[in-house]
Order: sequence, then C-alpha cells, then structure tokens
Amino acid sequence: MKTIAFVQYPGLTPLDIVDPLQVFSELSRLVPGYDTIVVGERIEPMATDTPLCLVPSHTFDTMPDPYALIVPGGTAPTLAAMADEKLLDRLRTAAARSQLVGSVCTGSLLLAAAGLLEGRRANSHWMYRNLLAKFGATPVAERWVQDDYVITAAGVSAGIDLALHLVGELAGHDTARKVQLFLEYDPKPPFGPIDWEAANPGQYAPQGQKRLRQALADHPALLERLTA
Amino acid sequence: MKTIAFVQYPGLTPLDIVDPLQVFSELSRLVPGYDTIVVGERIEPMATDTPLCLVPSHTFDTMPDPYALIVPGGTAPTLAAMADEKLLDRLRTAAARSQLVGSVCTGSLLLAAAGLLEGRRANSHWMYRNLLAKFGATPVAERWVQDDYVITAAGVSAGIDLALHLVGELAGHDTARKVQLFLEYDPKPPFGPIDWEAANPGQYAPQGQKRLRQALADHPALLERLTA
Repeated sequence: MKTIAFVQYPGLTPLDIVDPLQVFSELSRLVPGYDTIVVGERIEPMATDTPLCLVPSHTFDTMPDPYALIVPGGTAPTLAAMADEKLLDRLRTAAARSQLVGSVCTGSLLLAAAGLLEGRRANSHWMYRNLLAKFGATPVAERWVQDDYVITAAGVSAGIDLALHLVGELAGHDTARKVQLFLEYDPKPPFGPIDWEAANPGQYAPQGQKRLRQALADHPALLERLTA
Repeated sequence: MKTIAFVQYPGLTPLDIVDPLQVFSELSRLVPGYDTIVVGERIEPMATDTPLCLVPSHTFDTMPDPYALIVPGGTAPTLAAMADEKLLDRLRTAAARSQLVGSVCTGSLLLAAAGLLEGRRANSHWMYRNLLAKFGATPVAERWVQDDYVITAAGVSAGIDLALHLVGELAGHDTARKVQLFLEYDPKPPFGPIDWEAANPGQYAPQGQKRLRQALADHPALLERLTA
C-alpha cells in the first residue's frame, strides 16, 4: 500500500491540503494500492484561515510509513510555524520515513525551516519564494519543481497540478487524465490566467515583510536570518 | 455585511466547498463588508469522501441571513441526500433567506430535489447532468450557468471559477484578479485541459446509474422518477 500523507497544523489554508488530497483520494478509488491519510498532532478540530475547522485522520505517532508526505501552506500561522520546533521535528521524522516529500504554497517554508530543502531547487507562494534562499534552497518560479525526492508547488491552487503530475508518474498518464475527468478539472478562470506583468507582484513585498515580522516577532534570531 | 454561506452535510466532496470558500475568504480579507460561514446541522466533525473531517462554523438555526448560499456536491452520499427531506427543507428555508443560490458539482441535484431549479438552466457534474431534467431544469454544459438568482457550476473543481466570477460581479474585476493572484490560480493542468472527445464520458453512464440505484435503494419512488 502506498500511503499519501498530508500534514495538518493549526491555521493552514485548507485549499492547499484539499486540492491534492482530492486528487489522491480519487486515485485510491480508481487504482488499488493507494490510500490517503491526514496527519496532525491530535485527532481534533483545528482552525484554518477560513471558518472551516479540519480534523486529521491520524496522529504523527500512529501514522503508517507514508510513500509521500505533503505539507500544505498558509499565511501568518505558517510563517509563525517556521519557528515551531516541535512541528519541524515531526516533519523531519516523517520525511525520513517517506520516499517522496512535497509541499504546496508556503508549506515549502516549513520543509526549508526543517532543513529539508538545503541545496534543492524549490518553489513556494510567489510572495515568499525568495525566503527559500535564506534556507539554502534555490527558488524556482515554476508551477511545481521536482528535485530528486522533493517536489514543491507554487501557491495555494498549484497543489492540484502537482498532484496530477505525481499521479501521472505513479499510475500513468491515462489514470491521471481519468482523475482529472472525475474532478472535472477543466479550468476556465473567468478573467484568464494570471497576467504577471500587470499584477506586478513586487508591489506586495512590503506587505510580505510586514506579515513575516509580525509572525516571527517572538523569534528575533530567525527573523534576522530571513530579513538580513 | 454580505455573508456567503456554504452548506455542509455528511459525505460531501471537500474540494467542492473549499475551492469557493477559499475565494470568498480571500475576498473578505481584501474588501470590508464580506464574510464567509459554513453551515451544518450541528457544529461537530462530519465525514467527507476523503479521510478529512470538516466542522461547520454555524448551524442552520443560528446562521445569519446569507447574501449567497452555496451547496457543494459529492458522490454517493450526495445522491442519497436527494431523499433527505430534512436537509432539503433546510435548503429551501435558507435559500428563501438568500439573494443568490449556488451550487458546485452535484450540489445542484440537491437544489433540484428541493424544487429550487424548476424552469432554470443549470449544470452539475457531467456524470449526473442529465438528472437535472427530471426535476424540471434545463441541463447546460458550461463551466458555470447563471439563471437569475441561481448559479450552478460543473463538477468539483469548477467551484473556483464560479466563485471568481461572482467576486468579479460583486466587487469588480480588479478585485477578482487580486483574489486570483493571492490564490495563485494560474492553472497548468499537466496533461492539458480535458479532451472531452477522447474522454468519452458516455462510457460511464452505466457506472452513474449503478451508483444512483445503490444510493436511492431505499427510495424507490424517487429512483423511479430519476431513471424512468
């Protein structure tokens, strides 16, 4: 059995976890030999950055060895979690038991803070991509970036593309297309794709810095490292 | 305050609810005057079609009057819920208090079963789209379909497109593009868009019929109406 394990922690962005979880859950229905679990510190409701609370299916202590470990991201709570040594230890231990380690959005900052992205090409949410370099990774602005056994996606909604890519690698392109069909993933963004030039993401750098300073106010050494 | 209310019920497909919830949650952070809630029968963990359980933020009895009510879909549990008179009553009552009623995926079958789509153009997951006609609606194969105050999306992942469209209508295209930017919704399906001809969805009609018969085995009158 290949288990795809998704990490849950307080305050995350639920779409970061649910996009790839839905893809792999569909895979597990179509193809024997796959299952999905959601792993947290305790099996109890945890807040997200929406009004929805999520409840994991397993704890870190009771999880089976995963084939793949996927870490979702979020906003301020995820930035603060870069200083959560207990969570980072959980990630290091679980990653050591996994054959593939992945992330969606700022989940890559947690992998990076855990020391798991040193020397690796990786991506994150565009607003925080450059922080990866502070942890010894090479930021790459692609929808998903695979470097050996580490695969990291761009922000939030990129998790569905990363997951479909992985399904294609694991179970073949035909199966991946079937998962895509059942999830009716035939995107029609009403205003087209992102026009990066018009969006001018650089204008949000001060906002990103401010969020980072607030989130890590109690962790001056880490903040210094990330803003130097 | 314009409240966007998402309906939660047991066994739903979490991506159906989380895609548009994340869009409107981002709107509520960017623009004053909007908030999001998740409404269920009780504020307690409910199963989904993944290992994740979700907890709503409000009950039907305590919810404020919503501006918009959005009903997510799912597989067998949603088909069975077409016979859940208590849930259908909740939907009728909440819809009567809303200015806009929407659905994602087979959520439209619940709106239809509640009598809310009679005479309306509507969509659903491709596998069950034709069932809408049995409830007096006109099935339309578009990513989202608006007919007066009723807006229904295609399957699962179509909720993000519907939600961005609504944000554009409510708060303007620039704001919708900003929400899209922050969710980094710049889709790159690794195998391209769905090739509907190659996918040949008609081949799954027997599978859809079988699921429907199983889900409504205890409700022969409704089953007869839907399969006649």
